[in-house]
Amino acid sequence: MEEQVVVLAAVTVLAVLQQAYFSLQVIYARRKFSVSPPVVTGPPAFERIFRAQANCSEYFPIFIAVLWTSGVFFSQGLSSVCGLLYLYGRFHYFHGYSEAAQQRLAPLYFSARVLWVLIGFSVLGVFLSFCRVYLQVDLLTELGSALGLD
Amino acid sequence: MEEQVVVLAAVTVLAVLQQAYFSLQVIYARRKFSVSPPVVTGPPAFERIFRAQANCSEYFPIFIAVLWTSGVFFSQGLSSVCGLLYLYGRFHYFHGYSEAAQQRLAPLYFSARVLWVLIGFSVLGVFLSFCRVYLQVDLLTELGSALGLD
Amino acid sequence: MEEQVVVLAAVTVLAVLQQAYFSLQVIYARRKFSVSPPVVTGPPAFERIFRAQANCSEYFPIFIAVLWTSGVFFSQGLSSVCGLLYLYGRFHYFHGYSEAAQQRLAPLYFSARVLWVLIGFSVLGVFLSFCRVYLQVDLLTELGSALGLD
Repeated sequence: MEEQVVVLAAVTVLAVLQQAYFSLQVIYARRKFSVSPPVVTGPPAFERIFRAQANCSEYFPIFIAVLWTSGVFFSQGLSSVCGLLYLYGRFHYFHGYSEAAQQRLAPLYFSARVLWVLIGFSVLGVFLSFCRVYLQVDLLTELGSALGLD
Repeated sequence: MEEQVVVLAAVTVLAVLQQAYFSLQVIYARRKFSVSPPVVTGPPAFERIFRAQANCSEYFPIFIAVLWTSGVFFSQGLSSVCGLLYLYGRFHYFHGYSEAAQQRLAPLYFSARVLWVLIGFSVLGVFLSFCRVYLQVDLLTELGSALGLD
Repeated sequence: MEEQVVVLAAVTVLAVLQQAYFSLQVIYARRKFSVSPPVVTGPPAFERIFRAQANCSEYFPIFIAVLWTSGVFFSQGLSSVCGLLYLYGRFHYFHGYSEAAQQRLAPLYFSARVLWVLIGFSVLGVFLSFCRVYLQVDLLTELGSALGLD
């Protein structure tokens, strides 16, 4: 069991560390631009950093949910690679958005595409699992037999 | 193990797809009402869609947490049915809120009630599990015996 | 398996109940200060309560992710104690922030420190698990041997 999820756990911890890093950037921006809580509006440069962090936070639970669904029901290896690519995209999104709203777009589209791949893996993994559990059909084995791979 | 969680995983994937759908609606609303990031205020019609999506996002991790706690410790079947009802309620909440703030209320109360049922199942499931693990008492079996069901 | 996670599940349910409590406080504050959705700005007393809840919601999935990673890969007992301390800190954060922005700081720093401890446990637990799975080395046993504890 442990070996089937430990890499997913490592990617999860990395994602948490990234969120902590983004939160610290907002704290620094609050000091730099003198925007004290509970105020969340201010100079555009502050608002971009604030929104970048808020957007990453909003997607964090969705990312974790598909990372684990895809990793447990489809493939830990492929999901973890996608997870790292997603975090890479989010890092560039955050720093791009901090510079200019326009610069958030390319890494945002990249992250969104990676997230769709993880959603696709999750759908496929859950579908294959449904077939095994409720139809007693292992489609991957059937496919292998049909292709003469066994 | 797989058969005990695969339906929960399917509901989770559906919940992620719903969040993706809501996010797309916000993107379309930003274009329609010309509200460019990082701005999050604008015409009331935009703000309602923005807040509807933000509220659903905020509840997403809470929903996933009780869906799985309830599903693993109490009943996968009952939890999954509640999960689908919750997503149904959220769909109507989102579209109601998009029309008028008043129209968000009925589906919001419905979703909240379903969430409380999931919380109740979770509390009950964890309590029964505590009794099994720490008191070596299986309350469901005891109840069955007391009622002469075995 | 059940006995290895049931306390984590109990802390998770408690965290969900706390989030429900915070959400109710926002609803009461909306009524008290007459701030109807989708508006999220108003008197500072309302904005503090709104931001307190938003901040707790934002950290909820991060907290749940490290609570479980730390609890499954390191120690359920230590993680659950940290989890309860975190929820205790968040309770005082919410009520401190409701009174004055300044009063949110001490419990916020306390919660943040507990979260870092959970992150530390998660990193350590995942690292030890990696060593067991990919290097076939159980560092805790090795350490015990080296110290003559076995």
